[in-house]
Amino acid sequence: MTINKRLGEQTVKLENPPKIIATHSIVGPKEGEGPLSGYFDQVLSDDTYGEDSFEKAESQMMFTAISEAINKAHLKEKDINYLFSGDLLNQIISSSFAAREFSIPFFGLYGACSTMSESLSLASLIMDGGFAKYVVAATSSHFSSAERQFRFPLEYGSQRPKTAQWTVTGSGALVLGHEGNYPQITYVTTGKVKDFEQKNPNNMGAAMAPAAADTIAKHFKDTGRKPSDYDFIATGDLGVVGKELADKLIEELGYNIRGVHIDCGEMIFDNEKQNTDSGGSGCGCSAVVFTGYLYKKLMKKEIKRVLLVSTGALMSTTSSLQGETIPGIAHAVAIEMN
Amino acid sequence: MTINKRLGEQTVKLENPPKIIATHSIVGPKEGEGPLSGYFDQVLSDDTYGEDSFEKAESQMMFTAISEAINKAHLKEKDINYLFSGDLLNQIISSSFAAREFSIPFFGLYGACSTMSESLSLASLIMDGGFAKYVVAATSSHFSSAERQFRFPLEYGSQRPKTAQWTVTGSGALVLGHEGNYPQITYVTTGKVKDFEQKNPNNMGAAMAPAAADTIAKHFKDTGRKPSDYDFIATGDLGVVGKELADKLIEELGYNIRGVHIDCGEMIFDNEKQNTDSGGSGCGCSAVVFTGYLYKKLMKKEIKRVLLVSTGALMSTTSSLQGETIPGIAHAVAIEMN
Repeated sequence: MTINKRLGEQTVKLENPPKIIATHSIVGPKEGEGPLSGYFDQVLSDDTYGEDSFEKAESQMMFTAISEAINKAHLKEKDINYLFSGDLLNQIISSSFAAREFSIPFFGLYGACSTMSESLSLASLIMDGGFAKYVVAATSSHFSSAERQFRFPLEYGSQRPKTAQWTVTGSGALVLGHEGNYPQITYVTTGKVKDFEQKNPNNMGAAMAPAAADTIAKHFKDTGRKPSDYDFIATGDLGVVGKELADKLIEELGYNIRGVHIDCGEMIFDNEKQNTDSGGSGCGCSAVVFTGYLYKKLMKKEIKRVLLVSTGALMSTTSSLQGETIPGIAHAVAIEMN
Repeated sequence: MTINKRLGEQTVKLENPPKIIATHSIVGPKEGEGPLSGYFDQVLSDDTYGEDSFEKAESQMMFTAISEAINKAHLKEKDINYLFSGDLLNQIISSSFAAREFSIPFFGLYGACSTMSESLSLASLIMDGGFAKYVVAATSSHFSSAERQFRFPLEYGSQRPKTAQWTVTGSGALVLGHEGNYPQITYVTTGKVKDFEQKNPNNMGAAMAPAAADTIAKHFKDTGRKPSDYDFIATGDLGVVGKELADKLIEELGYNIRGVHIDCGEMIFDNEKQNTDSGGSGCGCSAVVFTGYLYKKLMKKEIKRVLLVSTGALMSTTSSLQGETIPGIAHAVAIEMN
């Protein structure tokens, strides 16, 4: 068998590029007060979403994002061949409990905050391989469920350093299909785990920047593309601090992306007014910025090419307590509108 | 584009069946005293594996399983296009920290104890789609890291009910390639999340049995195969109690699998002598029984066809404390030797 879809070390060129035929974004009240407010499909007025725990609220948000994306694609649950999803909570309960409500074959993922581009990568490969007519990729995060799981009980009112990020409350889902004039996935560059021995869980941007830099540089090397081939290279949630570091690291690797580099974490809040320090984070961050903001700009042809690079910090409270450093990972997906 | 590889609702027929060209199994001391002892490639005399925590020991076991499987395939790290792996620990740190030691593009998964067949399913689809020359699928679990994360500190010496299972300390890895006379993957049946409203975290077998029954029945329905087409239908870790329940549920769905049904959880320990009650569990259970025992029987042509059905319980301590039931999932992979 010939393996003719591989380019270089880490990239696949899709021969039958799947299309993003519908998306849905749902966010919490704070995200709804941020600069991208007008782009989200749904803004909650209450971040418990009527549920009796933050964890249940997060799962319910993902359920809504998936249901609405399927509705917008004018499809039924039974038309969807696979659901790919993951989240930050222990044992990805947001995803599992959302998937329980659907009769769709389910692949659970864990890629920390890289999950939007991880689920989109796998969904795209499965579509291109001819295994599915329609696939859904989704992810979510929730400030309050993440904060109490990874850091401190909310009631402590812990102080935040300037490098800290604010976990986005939000979920994004998208439906891939083969037909119609929609933004399509052309390349998938899969990341390796990179560890620059950062240990501070209040500076996730610095932990993820080396992985983002490595994946972006590999994407250029594998495809022969250059930064100016993209309208935007959108990293997931490096934040203000991590974004600057990533730009420097990518420059050392021979590419200058400053002119086209945006970061979903930097953009989603007005970091000064909203006291979000270095910016937003969480799986939901790049999910809602992509499904809300970037997808709409692609559909309107205001932009033509985006490289989505969601970034994840692969740690747990146990690994940090045991003195481990924080490795990172980043997956890149090229999305283009004709 | 034609989607000609799908059979029925949940199954894909692989047109270029990938082959399992090498495997490695590594287990802890207790597993090494069980009835399958002679089949494992490596039995540890110390379940800390020389590390200073059980979590680090688990990650190190996975690193060894992956390294040795690659060595046995006479390949180098750089030959492997993707690594698919997951485990039970919060934020899958065993997998992430093992993946950090390799320069291989990494997709992190979470499927609870279904991870061996989940990783094998995705790896097989990626191979069949022409995206890779070689892929590694792996998973692990560790009694002591799981027990203290999911249940109680080991020092409590909690009593175990008869329905309880014993998390297997072990890791299995396998390398998929396209060449040679090796067991090949022919069908992938992907499971849906099933919830029969079981709430007892000491009876995981009952929580997973409905998912196993559903996936196995769908496999027969989609492919037109029947139980006697297989030498073994090997469920992951239903244990003695869950296996009997699954057999009954599958009978209600119109198939009798009793003659060919084995359960990795039931087999790995001498449950009476080793005080393992209902049997083994954990991602590592079906991983080491497949890579150790079943793979060797396939290679020797003592058996020709196996349906591997790893089964997962999709809960967390948080979801149980919040009163949630325990949904299950099961993925089936057909493996055949010519």
